[in-house]
Amino acid sequence: MSNTSGQVIKCKAAVAWEAAKPLVIEQVEVAPPKAGEVRLKILYTSLCHTDVYFWEAKGQTPLFPRIFGHEAGGIVESVGEGVTHLKPGDHALPVFTGECGECPHCKSEESNMCDLLRINTDRGVMLHDQESRFSINGKPIYHFVGTSTFSEYTVVHAGCVAKINPEAPLDKVCVLSCGICTGLGATVNVAKPKPGSSVAVFGLGAVGLAAAEGARISGASRIIGVDLVSSRFELAKKFGVNEFVNPKDHNKPVQEVIADMTNGGVDRAVECTGSIQAMISAFECVHDGWGVAVLVGVPSKDDAFKTHPMNFLNERTLKGTFYGNYKPRTDLPNVVEKYMKGELELEKFITHTVPFSEINKAFDLMLKGESIRCIIRMEE
Amino acid sequence: MSNTSGQVIKCKAAVAWEAAKPLVIEQVEVAPPKAGEVRLKILYTSLCHTDVYFWEAKGQTPLFPRIFGHEAGGIVESVGEGVTHLKPGDHALPVFTGECGECPHCKSEESNMCDLLRINTDRGVMLHDQESRFSINGKPIYHFVGTSTFSEYTVVHAGCVAKINPEAPLDKVCVLSCGICTGLGATVNVAKPKPGSSVAVFGLGAVGLAAAEGARISGASRIIGVDLVSSRFELAKKFGVNEFVNPKDHNKPVQEVIADMTNGGVDRAVECTGSIQAMISAFECVHDGWGVAVLVGVPSKDDAFKTHPMNFLNERTLKGTFYGNYKPRTDLPNVVEKYMKGELELEKFITHTVPFSEINKAFDLMLKGESIRCIIRMEE
Repeated sequence: MSNTSGQVIKCKAAVAWEAAKPLVIEQVEVAPPKAGEVRLKILYTSLCHTDVYFWEAKGQTPLFPRIFGHEAGGIVESVGEGVTHLKPGDHALPVFTGECGECPHCKSEESNMCDLLRINTDRGVMLHDQESRFSINGKPIYHFVGTSTFSEYTVVHAGCVAKINPEAPLDKVCVLSCGICTGLGATVNVAKPKPGSSVAVFGLGAVGLAAAEGARISGASRIIGVDLVSSRFELAKKFGVNEFVNPKDHNKPVQEVIADMTNGGVDRAVECTGSIQAMISAFECVHDGWGVAVLVGVPSKDDAFKTHPMNFLNERTLKGTFYGNYKPRTDLPNVVEKYMKGELELEKFITHTVPFSEINKAFDLMLKGESIRCIIRMEE
Repeated sequence: MSNTSGQVIKCKAAVAWEAAKPLVIEQVEVAPPKAGEVRLKILYTSLCHTDVYFWEAKGQTPLFPRIFGHEAGGIVESVGEGVTHLKPGDHALPVFTGECGECPHCKSEESNMCDLLRINTDRGVMLHDQESRFSINGKPIYHFVGTSTFSEYTVVHAGCVAKINPEAPLDKVCVLSCGICTGLGATVNVAKPKPGSSVAVFGLGAVGLAAAEGARISGASRIIGVDLVSSRFELAKKFGVNEFVNPKDHNKPVQEVIADMTNGGVDRAVECTGSIQAMISAFECVHDGWGVAVLVGVPSKDDAFKTHPMNFLNERTLKGTFYGNYKPRTDLPNVVEKYMKGELELEKFITHTVPFSEINKAFDLMLKGESIRCIIRMEE
């Protein structure tokens, strides 16, 4: 039992007071975890594009002041009533979605979309009592996707916390909390390319590079990167991408370009941009008879996916995935082990590191497109 | 060696001289099989909607005079040069699509869309020499989908002929050549429902009933038939359909009706109508997290499948299938065995039988919607 258990902890957090304004490091009060919750000491957190998207608040109802952050690694400080799978001292990754273990989705082998703990970007409070555990002078500060890892301590629903190997370096495996698993799982859990096959990856950001890493690990022999920025090809080579197509370089649809390159189409395609046109191209570029396309990127509200139904009848498959189909508590420990065994490489995703006091630099790097992942270390 | 081997055979065939006019039983000359071909003595054939569709010639370039028919059972009379997997006397089912065994599709475990022998409804001649094996007084009569089973003897590419158990009654298993396998395979090979699951079947014609039979065999506990004709429910009960929805009875989209009935959606859906609206409904009525929809019905040329991409992102899968993903030569013998073991029931599909001389009655029955399958016996 830690000596802070049951007490309010005063610590530093990076608070977003309003949309698109630099975060401010403040002293916040973090209440103890209530029933079914866990309080984590965050050691490392990283910045994901989703943080930036909700911080900019261009596409949704703004909710401020708020503590962002959802990719992180830390140590359990204390647990609330009824929490049995975690204890103080456990090394853990908080996740923006969860696994209650009881709902039809958790009981299904095929789904990870927990009814209780599925991501909710609008909610800024804890499920248990609809209140925040963060405050400054008694004024609540809102949570973000149940994680709020831009704080030295945070309170998370226990169903959103994966216990991992304590030997795993948290400054590396923290990136598995969101983007890397999203892309990796889309390939290894959903597209499932066979050794020697061809895979097209649309979008070479962090998620797309992780999808390519999944193809590399699966033994795909042709990994075709598709991106509107040709300079990304050089970096993508580290992730197994060995051919590149920039749709801007061709005067026919990119799905036709890819079909020409591959004698009728690729075996698998993974779409990581969220552009509706890229989704359609990713589907139409897979080979008839056996091709599988997987959608990962989140579309706009009014988008419509449109194709000729014969593209399906000719034995193509289209699937979507959420968080790479990983169940956070069940599957994340195994992904960490894959890293520990050297099968999965995480270092190459980490392009920058900053101390917590310079967290706004991480935002700048991402906005300029200079980073894949920037790790923020909580201890200076 | 049969005593007709290498000789032209004179026999009866039902010739379609022009679109939508009754077939005429004529004496035709059937040339011996050339390299890679087989000549079959047809004992039983059945009528499928595809015969009627091309006989009516409303949707495609007419090709007449032609001998229709593509669901049949018969005995090998003689084989052409190079044919090693069949010999005179073998019991066999001809199929409108084939399995060359050499192309990437045949070599793939996932596809049955043989590059060489895939269905071609426009071709009226044999692949080997682009000529017909049928003639009347020297004038060629065209083939249909490489089978032309409305003839006492026909010549078929050996890759389109499945050798089956000689104990199997050809007057029953002949229906496996097309529609029944198409629906059955869509469920058991592609949708793959688990025991106890829910399956929606759109369209309760022969193919849809076969899809329901597949769900029944798979142990699905809820089999929901969807059809615009409510009277079809009664018959469909024999095929395992235990709930029924007529979209006309509801003032909201049928996918919403089904979601309400099933706590969010069915586990699997199989679309057997070809209507684009039914395709969209079939996809949107499957449960998020694990739902799989399979398209079977052939759409119109200008249709567009349209849905919000979030329906995919929420972990739904959409696939299409051709001939139930069965490889004709490899898989059909096993389907026949399923029937022989009593796992698959075929008798209930067979509603009528007529002698060859009354083949036009089979057309009347289908046009009036009175038959599922009408068997035509070649010997009076």
